[in-house]
Amino acid sequence: MWDLTADDVERVAIGAAILGAGGGGNPLRGKLQALVHLQRGYQLRVVKFEELADEALVVPLGGMGAPTIGLEKIGRGDEGKLAVEVLARHLGVQVAATVPIEVGGSNSFMPLIAAAQLGLPMVDADGMGRAFPELQMMSFYFDGTSPSPVVMVDCLHRVITLEHIQPAGEVERLARAMCVQLGGRAMVANEPIPVARLRRVCIPNTFELAHRIGDAVMTAHATGQNPVDATCEVTGGRVLFRGKVVDVDRRIQRGYNFGSLRIDGLEAWHGATARIALQNEFLICRVDGDTVAVVPDLITLVDSERGLPVTTELVRYGLRVDVLGLPAPRQLTTQQALQYVGPRAFGYDEEYQPLTSALRG
Amino acid sequence: MWDLTADDVERVAIGAAILGAGGGGNPLRGKLQALVHLQRGYQLRVVKFEELADEALVVPLGGMGAPTIGLEKIGRGDEGKLAVEVLARHLGVQVAATVPIEVGGSNSFMPLIAAAQLGLPMVDADGMGRAFPELQMMSFYFDGTSPSPVVMVDCLHRVITLEHIQPAGEVERLARAMCVQLGGRAMVANEPIPVARLRRVCIPNTFELAHRIGDAVMTAHATGQNPVDATCEVTGGRVLFRGKVVDVDRRIQRGYNFGSLRIDGLEAWHGATARIALQNEFLICRVDGDTVAVVPDLITLVDSERGLPVTTELVRYGLRVDVLGLPAPRQLTTQQALQYVGPRAFGYDEEYQPLTSALRG
Repeated sequence: MWDLTADDVERVAIGAAILGAGGGGNPLRGKLQALVHLQRGYQLRVVKFEELADEALVVPLGGMGAPTIGLEKIGRGDEGKLAVEVLARHLGVQVAATVPIEVGGSNSFMPLIAAAQLGLPMVDADGMGRAFPELQMMSFYFDGTSPSPVVMVDCLHRVITLEHIQPAGEVERLARAMCVQLGGRAMVANEPIPVARLRRVCIPNTFELAHRIGDAVMTAHATGQNPVDATCEVTGGRVLFRGKVVDVDRRIQRGYNFGSLRIDGLEAWHGATARIALQNEFLICRVDGDTVAVVPDLITLVDSERGLPVTTELVRYGLRVDVLGLPAPRQLTTQQALQYVGPRAFGYDEEYQPLTSALRG
Repeated sequence: MWDLTADDVERVAIGAAILGAGGGGNPLRGKLQALVHLQRGYQLRVVKFEELADEALVVPLGGMGAPTIGLEKIGRGDEGKLAVEVLARHLGVQVAATVPIEVGGSNSFMPLIAAAQLGLPMVDADGMGRAFPELQMMSFYFDGTSPSPVVMVDCLHRVITLEHIQPAGEVERLARAMCVQLGGRAMVANEPIPVARLRRVCIPNTFELAHRIGDAVMTAHATGQNPVDATCEVTGGRVLFRGKVVDVDRRIQRGYNFGSLRIDGLEAWHGATARIALQNEFLICRVDGDTVAVVPDLITLVDSERGLPVTTELVRYGLRVDVLGLPAPRQLTTQQALQYVGPRAFGYDEEYQPLTSALRG
């Protein structure tokens, strides 16, 4: 049992956004909401599986929408709580905890805040070990199960329930279309998962990992060490490219951010050009035409100076960035998983080539 | 209490499609589904308000979608039943009856069939006294109340619940977008309305009126009289134009049928041209540029020979048709109602001019 302090929140905000691979929502917004809740006396409590009964029900919860919209369209703050309440009442069950659908600067905090408002803890795990743009990309559903029933709540407390929908990709399609109509942003609660099953299908301990990464970065700041090296050490990642962002093409389509970046190389990469495609998250990085990293491996941008994450809604012309490649959790690289989160699932006609043999955590 | 016979079904199918003003769903499909249910021993029971307690709850029910899709995408037949069941369970209430959202060849039968499957009657009333393309055009909601919560069910038994949404036009916008994602067709059940309120806000006795119209048409067939005259006599309507359909422009946009017809005049109208615009229903009829009928008055096409209704999904090049204008029920022509169903609600920059002083029923 771990009751977060404000210092913890600072660390997780950094680490979760680094693991978010460009997505997972704006880290500043997530952090501020968490800090406000601490100030108001809420207990932001994270638990491990061992602390819950096997049959206890856990609700996967997170924000859906294009990151650029999430930056401007701020919620009222209790959408997640209402989504869990509606779902529990609808199913006639007791919910024991929430769990993030993904890791991210915002989506690591939203289920924690909703849980706090409900007097519940959040489980230290998630469905992606990173962020991905679509619902069927959660490890919970790689076995063909569906997140349905799903409850969506927006900032006007409008409630949409989607039920008896299979497979997960179809839930994604319908929920996304509704999300667009709701203004491009909604909190989404999926069918509760018993702990015994969740333990098998989740990516465990990713909140703690986010904290470790954030702690390494902040410690590096305090001690004058290189924060990028610190991140790579904790995650088993490496610097793929360093340069200056010279072009950002980013648009909202079908409720996602789509686009691409061009980065001109600096230092060891002088004369080379990196191009990174994005759909909410960074998906593929090519340097002078050669793929150097591709989903499900994590492609994360950090500013070269401070090693702080630069998400897809914040990246802009002129930023000097390091492009990091972090190896995906092993649960994402099985043949079954690659059908949902591999290069072909995003329309890239290439096989997944693991970034590196170094495995993290 | 009126238990329908197969003869009644034949009559209502004709009359309801005439009152449908081109919409309300395909009359053949509605009729066949009703006849099959009679054959299987279901009781298709219509009741008047007097037969229900004031506090009894009535669920407005009907099919949503573009009529051309309804013609091809046939449901499984129990979508309406499931929608009512889900809604009743969700709200924890007993439902006493259904009521059609609108009159139409299909939508007059769907709530009757769903009621029969549930062992319930259908109230002889509806929310339009005709058909209209959008949810907020129901008289139930002219006072600003909302149909939410709304339950949508499609032919795969996918269930979508929309809750805490106001006003009715916003429910329409969200439900329509979802309907498009569900393949363009769904059954929709609105929040139950107590009889005491429904009596005040409905258009009463429209099922009986549909039966009277159908009976007049069939009697005319049997006795060699003019069926178009018979319809006009029962409804207070008149022939606006007679001619041959020479152009049909019909497309599916945003989940509706949109388009227009051109009809070249015959007999008294020789040399004149009628143009009729449609959105699921016929909305405005202009002859040589002059408006001769406009919503909320009913514009209905019947074939000139037999006086049988020609709905917007069936009208095609070469048909010889009479264009009928039937006066709208008085509940649709108040200043309040015209905000929802008058010419400007459909984007026509003109005032509503009543078709005729003759009022029906």
